Amino acid sequence: MCVHTASISVHTRGKGTYEITDQVGRIVRESGVRVGQVTVFIQHTSASLIIYENADRSARVDLESYFDRLVPEDADYFVHTTEGSDDMPSHIRMVLTRSSETIPIDRGQMQLGTWQGIFVFEHRHAPHSRNVAVTVIGQA
Amino acid sequence: MCVHTASISVHTRGKGTYEITDQVGRIVRESGVRVGQVTVFIQHTSASLIIYENADRSARVDLESYFDRLVPEDADYFVHTTEGSDDMPSHIRMVLTRSSETIPIDRGQMQLGTWQGIFVFEHRHAPHSRNVAVTVIGQA
Amino acid sequence: MCVHTASISVHTRGKGTYEITDQVGRIVRESGVRVGQVTVFIQHTSASLIIYENADRSARVDLESYFDRLVPEDADYFVHTTEGSDDMPSHIRMVLTRSSETIPIDRGQMQLGTWQGIFVFEHRHAPHSRNVAVTVIGQA
Repeated sequence: MCVHTASISVHTRGKGTYEITDQVGRIVRESGVRVGQVTVFIQHTSASLIIYENADRSARVDLESYFDRLVPEDADYFVHTTEGSDDMPSHIRMVLTRSSETIPIDRGQMQLGTWQGIFVFEHRHAPHSRNVAVTVIGQA
Repeated sequence: MCVHTASISVHTRGKGTYEITDQVGRIVRESGVRVGQVTVFIQHTSASLIIYENADRSARVDLESYFDRLVPEDADYFVHTTEGSDDMPSHIRMVLTRSSETIPIDRGQMQLGTWQGIFVFEHRHAPHSRNVAVTVIGQA
Repeated sequence: MCVHTASISVHTRGKGTYEITDQVGRIVRESGVRVGQVTVFIQHTSASLIIYENADRSARVDLESYFDRLVPEDADYFVHTTEGSDDMPSHIRMVLTRSSETIPIDRGQMQLGTWQGIFVFEHRHAPHSRNVAVTVIGQA
């Protein structure tokens, strides 16, 4: 059994989804782990992680539209607004999605389903540098 | 320390929740792990996992009704509709619930709370075969 | 590689968020694990976990207000109401947040981001005793 840690830096260009499947897959292969699991963890409170369909871009467009409606920027009861109208909605959208995900590894490969990809979901309008910690645990 | 992997195939009969607690518990016992953790991971983007109350069926009925209202099938702004009106809502309901969950193991048993069960949450109308990968890590 | 288990008991005083970051950090340090990961798991179906901004209390006030609106107590279609009007909303709010989270450990410390804290999110009006199981896996 061994542990291998790494991190991925994602430079976002404002609100939207940014795929990191290939970077995580590369870390898994470099770890030498044949069977085990990989955990991704985003170290932020206004961006999150999702495992989502990565074949058709339109599924991501609709997801982003849905979240804009589910957590509107102009809610009149928000008091935490110092950083602008996208501040509170960012925190809530993060809570409604994921901070960590754990994916199985078998025969040295992440066992994602056919249509699954791993994405950083950026909730702020401004570009940000986001850090995702990757921890691989298993047997070489 | 050791790793044990297995998978569960769930044949869903359309939208709803399908309990898999017993199957996961059996894999944990067969793994021989006494202390550690088990991760369940669903390899799909239109079905998800939840840990939910498993005593009273009515709690699941209300949950399903709530999700039907929270992510309606007839949203006029969806563009990803090739596979029908339940296509986009399925992806969104998956994002709002879970792809992976990690449950502690002690004395050879999953440490779920008294009322907790593990469920596949099927979001499509048509029956599907869903695969859940199970990874047990710990000490025998 | 080793596994270390512990649990945290949180006495809630009704609906709201209760930070447990320090307790989890202490368990990580006491485990002696230098590199690996820690999983927190809440053993309940009407309270949940979130990783959330812990600097400004107003972000938590707004989050709680948002959830009161997103999952209202007076939905007329709920049938699971034996335990009162906060019963079903508690289960749904739990499903929309987290049962488990896995956080990386490096150099003996949890690798949370600058503004991240770990919180129990209590969804019931009445005070409760909530149990969070903590599992540390890694190399000493």
